[in-house]
Amino acid sequence: MSDTSREPGSRVVLPEQVSVVNVGLPMFGEALRAQGVRVVDVAWRIPAGGDEALVQALTQLYGPAAATVEAANQQVIRRLDEAAPAWVAVRPAREVVPGMGERTILHPGPPLAWDRFCDPLRRSAHATVIAEGWAASPDEAAALIGRGDVELAPANHHSAALPMATTLGPSAPVLVVQNEQGGNTAYAPLNQGSGRWPWLGADTNEAVAHLHWLRAVAGPLLNETLRNGDPIDVFAIAAQGVQMGDDIHMRLQASTNLLIRALLPRLVALGDSRRTELARFLSENYLFFLNLAIAAAKATTDWAAQVPDSTIVTGMARNGTTFGIRLGATGDRWFEAPAPPVEDALYRGDFGPADAAPDIGDSAIIELVGLGGAAAAASPAVAGFVGGRMSDAVARTQEVARVCAARSSRFKIPQLDFTGTPLGLDVRKVVELEIVPAITTGILDATDGRGQVGAGLARAPLECFQQAILALSAQHPYRDHRA
Amino acid sequence: MSDTSREPGSRVVLPEQVSVVNVGLPMFGEALRAQGVRVVDVAWRIPAGGDEALVQALTQLYGPAAATVEAANQQVIRRLDEAAPAWVAVRPAREVVPGMGERTILHPGPPLAWDRFCDPLRRSAHATVIAEGWAASPDEAAALIGRGDVELAPANHHSAALPMATTLGPSAPVLVVQNEQGGNTAYAPLNQGSGRWPWLGADTNEAVAHLHWLRAVAGPLLNETLRNGDPIDVFAIAAQGVQMGDDIHMRLQASTNLLIRALLPRLVALGDSRRTELARFLSENYLFFLNLAIAAAKATTDWAAQVPDSTIVTGMARNGTTFGIRLGATGDRWFEAPAPPVEDALYRGDFGPADAAPDIGDSAIIELVGLGGAAAAASPAVAGFVGGRMSDAVARTQEVARVCAARSSRFKIPQLDFTGTPLGLDVRKVVELEIVPAITTGILDATDGRGQVGAGLARAPLECFQQAILALSAQHPYRDHRA
Repeated sequence: MSDTSREPGSRVVLPEQVSVVNVGLPMFGEALRAQGVRVVDVAWRIPAGGDEALVQALTQLYGPAAATVEAANQQVIRRLDEAAPAWVAVRPAREVVPGMGERTILHPGPPLAWDRFCDPLRRSAHATVIAEGWAASPDEAAALIGRGDVELAPANHHSAALPMATTLGPSAPVLVVQNEQGGNTAYAPLNQGSGRWPWLGADTNEAVAHLHWLRAVAGPLLNETLRNGDPIDVFAIAAQGVQMGDDIHMRLQASTNLLIRALLPRLVALGDSRRTELARFLSENYLFFLNLAIAAAKATTDWAAQVPDSTIVTGMARNGTTFGIRLGATGDRWFEAPAPPVEDALYRGDFGPADAAPDIGDSAIIELVGLGGAAAAASPAVAGFVGGRMSDAVARTQEVARVCAARSSRFKIPQLDFTGTPLGLDVRKVVELEIVPAITTGILDATDGRGQVGAGLARAPLECFQQAILALSAQHPYRDHRA
Repeated sequence: MSDTSREPGSRVVLPEQVSVVNVGLPMFGEALRAQGVRVVDVAWRIPAGGDEALVQALTQLYGPAAATVEAANQQVIRRLDEAAPAWVAVRPAREVVPGMGERTILHPGPPLAWDRFCDPLRRSAHATVIAEGWAASPDEAAALIGRGDVELAPANHHSAALPMATTLGPSAPVLVVQNEQGGNTAYAPLNQGSGRWPWLGADTNEAVAHLHWLRAVAGPLLNETLRNGDPIDVFAIAAQGVQMGDDIHMRLQASTNLLIRALLPRLVALGDSRRTELARFLSENYLFFLNLAIAAAKATTDWAAQVPDSTIVTGMARNGTTFGIRLGATGDRWFEAPAPPVEDALYRGDFGPADAAPDIGDSAIIELVGLGGAAAAASPAVAGFVGGRMSDAVARTQEVARVCAARSSRFKIPQLDFTGTPLGLDVRKVVELEIVPAITTGILDATDGRGQVGAGLARAPLECFQQAILALSAQHPYRDHRA
């Protein structure tokens, strides 16, 4: 911007000082700055990296189709913001999970053939097959699945979601979480706790025994606990948890404790003496609330996905081999890319990148309802993980906000004077700005079943969002606008 | 500050521009500012309001006596910062509280004659006398105490501390909290919960029945709970609680939940079927951890008070009529002033200032160990109370820091990038800067026993600190320095 001035009725006088607003690449600004010129940099990048098809899709979805899209997005956001799913029961999967056959095993992420399963997910499936009584050893289990004697299906296709490498057989107990407003229900397994358990890629005898215990003791007793009182409003607890330093994905200490506090009278009143085992399990499992949050997020996003024409992401999941997203507007279709590595990782003991399996699990769904990375700014524990200072955690939330369409009205960030967490991941913004969600996640042993070896951040592949926007733009009703 | 410059070998050239640093009253700066002069204000007040005796005491304690004082203060701060009191048992007061006679009732704050007891404290004493079986009605109880048939003594003189209007009889169960490093033990009653109970100034039949229940059920079962596992490190839980939004005085939700989580397996394993009553009580009592924090703070400050020659406050308590502080250097002496009103108050329902009893209770001791107001910046709930924004809570902590000598090494404030809470309230600083601790507190009904009517901030009377510094300066070893 040059400070030109005109003397009345005369020629333009060159300014003595020139200031420059530099839009885009900082190198231009730096060149001017080197000549002593005052420069203000404005971040700007060519939208969608300048890809012609993507720019065309964006032009359409921000242009002629915008009214349709915005109306749909408002609907989706309202559902994401208002759904209040309640934990009502714990039942064997076969009794409640829709379409769950007697020989079905559910797995996380997009559909995947057995020969493409990564090692921790294979091991988890072995443990589940053995726990179901279909095989006596990991080798027998692998052979059985290899022969096609077990149906493998994505949990996401059965109103369920599974963290990390969890697999789910028909006898496994599931959390039943009802979204009354939407009239739909979602399911998640019991969180198995930290340790070398199947959900973290273990298939030892101990890991199988833990599945037996969850089925015989934890499931029935938790169901009785639920029956002896009101249902648990999952997001009401999550909202309090966010005020107490939980992001509800990586850190769940406060929400798990709130849940235990709420259930305490019922747990103590259980008649079965094995309640002491359940109490020890709950008292030691800092992650127990994780799977409740996942089930609630699944119930919420499934409801939101019923709205057509929206550009808001309603599904995000990884199977350890591929990463996929889904939108209500594009139905059951997955937009997939290879599972990314987990970056910015901290490893336990002597473990290192060579031991790390790729990003895995359905827990990324939490990021779609205003929690996880969206709530990082609320979490001192996440701050300790992403750089050490609260400002580092705030930066994560602010990055998420750049690609979200709204703010949560219930999850409030104290650190930001109680503004809501970002909500409604918009594929248009992701593709335009080339900012992808960073998902905080555990890292599993890639080859030897030694469980969790570290934790870090996985970046959702941009490619998934690019595929999605092209698909959106190619279909009704957007095509009609273009015509 | 004038930008003078000298031309070589010539006279002083007057500067074209003058900037001014204004020390003290802002009005001088404003006058200059009005003339277009650049002014930087520096906050400065006449120390101790210019009082000659106080200035002399400060001059001595910051001057000749400083080496002695600083060495002592370091010792005191180390004890305040490092004591790790553990909850080990719950016993009837008569069995454990030192010097507790069979007809003794302990009360909060400095010593106080019965005819000076405020209404809520009188009612609490009635309830305790009835619960002990010494009288059948409030009137009988009042007559008994009025005749001198009951010994009234400050809890602080018996290694105990009592929140709000709690009174303690010999049969009442007390939390036993041991400070192993110091070899001393402190006691606090069980927190009675919110409701119209004796500690909030009620003397109804229901209030007395609650004392019976605490004695018959909660006390013995909690003692059994403690016996069935490790002692509870109170400040370890408090430190986690501060990371989760507790200030550990006004807000104790996270720490209470952490405690419940830790005790869950033992609570569930209790043989007595009345464990369900205890569980309901704990599940509904958001303040349960308060009295543990008070006992731990008492054990800590009692140990710190054994160090001579320090200017750090080691006792702060209110009986509803007077407010008093104590220092190790001045032994058992109380420095007292009339109990202040509670300001910045929020009242329940139709209650208002006319219903408010003055500031009361021993809980102010929490403010002496780096918690309460010192930890306000960590607490979104406190922020909601002191102005609504986290910056309001941060301001409270920063105010406390101005009159404290150190920072806690274990209570860290996420909002301030994990710096420690202010620790070590120095009477020198309080008197010099005339900044007194603001104590967050409940407000009791002044006349009718209707329990808690509101909450607000009470300002410790400056007079207490002024008396203390004069007493300090008058005694050995400071007198020696002056000689």
